[in-house]
Amino acid sequence: MTMFDAAAKPPMTTSIGNSTPDDIWVQGFNLAEELMGQVDFGSMSFLLISGRLPSPGEAAVFNAILVALADHGLTPSALASRLTYTGAPEALQGAIASGVLGAGSVYLGVFEDTGRMLQQAAPTDAATDADLQQLCTDIINSHRQSGQKMPGLGHPFHKNGDPRTTRLLKLAQEHDLIGPHTRLMLMLHEQARSSSGARLPINAPGISGALLSDMGFDARILRGIAVISRAAGVVGHVAEEIHAPLGETLWYLAERQTTYQPRR
Amino acid sequence: MTMFDAAAKPPMTTSIGNSTPDDIWVQGFNLAEELMGQVDFGSMSFLLISGRLPSPGEAAVFNAILVALADHGLTPSALASRLTYTGAPEALQGAIASGVLGAGSVYLGVFEDTGRMLQQAAPTDAATDADLQQLCTDIINSHRQSGQKMPGLGHPFHKNGDPRTTRLLKLAQEHDLIGPHTRLMLMLHEQARSSSGARLPINAPGISGALLSDMGFDARILRGIAVISRAAGVVGHVAEEIHAPLGETLWYLAERQTTYQPRR
Amino acid sequence: MTMFDAAAKPPMTTSIGNSTPDDIWVQGFNLAEELMGQVDFGSMSFLLISGRLPSPGEAAVFNAILVALADHGLTPSALASRLTYTGAPEALQGAIASGVLGAGSVYLGVFEDTGRMLQQAAPTDAATDADLQQLCTDIINSHRQSGQKMPGLGHPFHKNGDPRTTRLLKLAQEHDLIGPHTRLMLMLHEQARSSSGARLPINAPGISGALLSDMGFDARILRGIAVISRAAGVVGHVAEEIHAPLGETLWYLAERQTTYQPRR
Amino acid sequence: MTMFDAAAKPPMTTSIGNSTPDDIWVQGFNLAEELMGQVDFGSMSFLLISGRLPSPGEAAVFNAILVALADHGLTPSALASRLTYTGAPEALQGAIASGVLGAGSVYLGVFEDTGRMLQQAAPTDAATDADLQQLCTDIINSHRQSGQKMPGLGHPFHKNGDPRTTRLLKLAQEHDLIGPHTRLMLMLHEQARSSSGARLPINAPGISGALLSDMGFDARILRGIAVISRAAGVVGHVAEEIHAPLGETLWYLAERQTTYQPRR
Repeated sequence: MTMFDAAAKPPMTTSIGNSTPDDIWVQGFNLAEELMGQVDFGSMSFLLISGRLPSPGEAAVFNAILVALADHGLTPSALASRLTYTGAPEALQGAIASGVLGAGSVYLGVFEDTGRMLQQAAPTDAATDADLQQLCTDIINSHRQSGQKMPGLGHPFHKNGDPRTTRLLKLAQEHDLIGPHTRLMLMLHEQARSSSGARLPINAPGISGALLSDMGFDARILRGIAVISRAAGVVGHVAEEIHAPLGETLWYLAERQTTYQPRR
Repeated sequence: MTMFDAAAKPPMTTSIGNSTPDDIWVQGFNLAEELMGQVDFGSMSFLLISGRLPSPGEAAVFNAILVALADHGLTPSALASRLTYTGAPEALQGAIASGVLGAGSVYLGVFEDTGRMLQQAAPTDAATDADLQQLCTDIINSHRQSGQKMPGLGHPFHKNGDPRTTRLLKLAQEHDLIGPHTRLMLMLHEQARSSSGARLPINAPGISGALLSDMGFDARILRGIAVISRAAGVVGHVAEEIHAPLGETLWYLAERQTTYQPRR
Repeated sequence: MTMFDAAAKPPMTTSIGNSTPDDIWVQGFNLAEELMGQVDFGSMSFLLISGRLPSPGEAAVFNAILVALADHGLTPSALASRLTYTGAPEALQGAIASGVLGAGSVYLGVFEDTGRMLQQAAPTDAATDADLQQLCTDIINSHRQSGQKMPGLGHPFHKNGDPRTTRLLKLAQEHDLIGPHTRLMLMLHEQARSSSGARLPINAPGISGALLSDMGFDARILRGIAVISRAAGVVGHVAEEIHAPLGETLWYLAERQTTYQPRR
Repeated sequence: MTMFDAAAKPPMTTSIGNSTPDDIWVQGFNLAEELMGQVDFGSMSFLLISGRLPSPGEAAVFNAILVALADHGLTPSALASRLTYTGAPEALQGAIASGVLGAGSVYLGVFEDTGRMLQQAAPTDAATDADLQQLCTDIINSHRQSGQKMPGLGHPFHKNGDPRTTRLLKLAQEHDLIGPHTRLMLMLHEQARSSSGARLPINAPGISGALLSDMGFDARILRGIAVISRAAGVVGHVAEEIHAPLGETLWYLAERQTTYQPRR
């Protein structure tokens, strides 16, 4: 085959995993000896993504974020999974993939958008309140000019405040994990509120994007963390679909309530 | 639309999640108050799937299983994810789904197959060794007659024993969580070894299937637990692909090493 | 990395495609010169899967099968796609994948199951009616013994007969493409009807499985042909979702009509 | 459940499909009577997406586009599908979905990007050459200012010209289907070439995006058309994987050629 010319491609390397006949290594740790029974699965996810184990405080907040975003009922993701399971029960992995595929820009994208906005501002640990105030003004102005909505603020349903945000902030404070990105996010919230007069609570994906930025996660991988969390929710829904199915009823509802209007 | 007749479909119910303006409820727990900061993400997954929180021992073993199966290097799942990311970096969820879709009958199916075999035998807590011995003989005979390979035994690479199995058994013992399914699995292993003469270690998916059966998980959902675990591994690979890509090099290798042999 | 021992793996070959700087080759044909503008997309799909171009009659029947199975309204696949698009409009490919994942054992599996049943019976071109009668009796007996439902017969909605079946049979007759698998299927239908007294029409996936078996397609790939067809239907639904969305309304309906019943 | 307030959601309507006990309707056509045996699968896809049947010329060009993009060998999509099939052969639909998920912004996105660029310029049927020249200059200037690469031009491998482009243009000319979007694309190519001095052929996705824009397809659905086409290619690869597997060999190659470099 000749699709590529001889130009050298970079050699392939990985830090993630390796097996020898007697041992399995993940990110340089002996899986059976140093990780299993020693770290919880949230911390393992942290390690797999970032290449290092979390501090105890980071483990607490990271787990809380995964717990917060796993599920909140019959979301479009959950419904897509259940409908897919209805047609293909032999392949649970397909039903789960189907649910995960809805974790895109509209719902879980907030996570990533907030992280990207904060990371582009690049506040440092040494930033003073005045420094952050300046970044904050720049961000608000640039959103105003481009007419874009600021990510991470407001919730269509939890208008008085997202209960998960309050909890995550409290946990992060207890573990002394409020870094410059989160400080910037809190300031943005204050300014947006005072300038618009509207109550726009920081939503859970928004504060999660800020806290994860402080832990060093690249904005480009944030959506992946949301997907791990959501995978657990989706598996919960498929488990329920096995013994208390609603996929067929939903199909029936959709059929019955939709009008057929041919364009011809 | 008229696809369905008027026959009543069952009403739709869910125990998983619900939101009110001020609270989010998951399996009857207040998410922000009772779960976030209180339980790790592994325990949250346990709750979502089974409808109850694990005991401390169950949480330890369940987390260890999720940690054990998350990753062991450049598996076909990891490679599929990285190749998908190469073509569609705008949609991380697609790369993750692509990896998860390979979690099927060949690799992670062992999980499910072992669980199904043990759950069909239906050993009870009160089973004596003689009872289990009988079930064991029945299982071996039925596999021999149908010519099927027994699931959960043997590993193509860890021929001296799967290091994850040893660790999982030790943890389960420490927490007094060796129930009748795991006892049956251990006995099957003994008998298979003595009758065949071959060393066939219990592999990690096999022992996981047994331990999860003892915790009450239905065999039909076991593959879902493996998928949650594998999702974390896949996100790790995509995170690495962002800064140390190997997808294009792999494509190049495949092109260069494949001979084009048209059938025409 | 050391996962595999030195045991030689088979060399990689493909007959599907190859590129040189000036030409692209598919199954040994020059894509731009011999295929584009010369064959329709159904025939191209036939070529990609089977390695040969269809005869004119095969092209007509194969296209008719793809046309028949593409869509028939708001199926679970269509709904899953639309719900996924609602959450991830930036990644059309994900919405399509989500719909395709529901093309599993329950709905489109009939295709594969019928093909497998007929191909296992292995009727030859030279089979007499008496030969087929014998195969037929064997098949019916083996289904009766195992208690399995015979695939390809009956339809939950088109109880008087599936209009697509009539059309496919007529087309196949016109093109002299009724081979031994289809003859066997017709006989099975007759016997099932006379022995059960029930009117059980051959459904569209059932007759398609028979006709495709006569064209030489392996039962293991039949589901793939259904998926190509269904992909077009799903893209139609996503196209409609862009300008006449129903995903959010469906979500709303599901939320409103589902009762939250925590198990705790 | 209470996630949504009482605000009315729009009613659900569809023009795509509907079933009555005796008939199936697609976009207002009787499926068995008016479509099966009457239109090829490419035309059926056109109908499903756009709501109308193509003219004979449109059917020829639309089919040629689907044929052109279906496959050109061991692309990342094809490899992802084959690797997924290696792990989950019980679920062909998953392997296909896995391949389709790579049809994203890097490869098949060109399709969509070119269509969007041309549709935003909004050339009309009545546009004179001078009008198009002006649009052309605007487009080139805006790409120069933003530093963005112009989509649809250049090919990493077919440097002398993409053979599929020549063929598609010839077909479109024969059928008198060169509309304002394609005229604009041809002019852009001329100007880009004369101003940069570089030979930058219009690639197949680029010309396809232009021709499909002339046929009235919204840029937002173009990627979907590419996905239908690619689905056929992917099914071809999975069909080949069944009898001439290369997934395991590729895995072996990846393992052997990758260096494990833990970061710890």
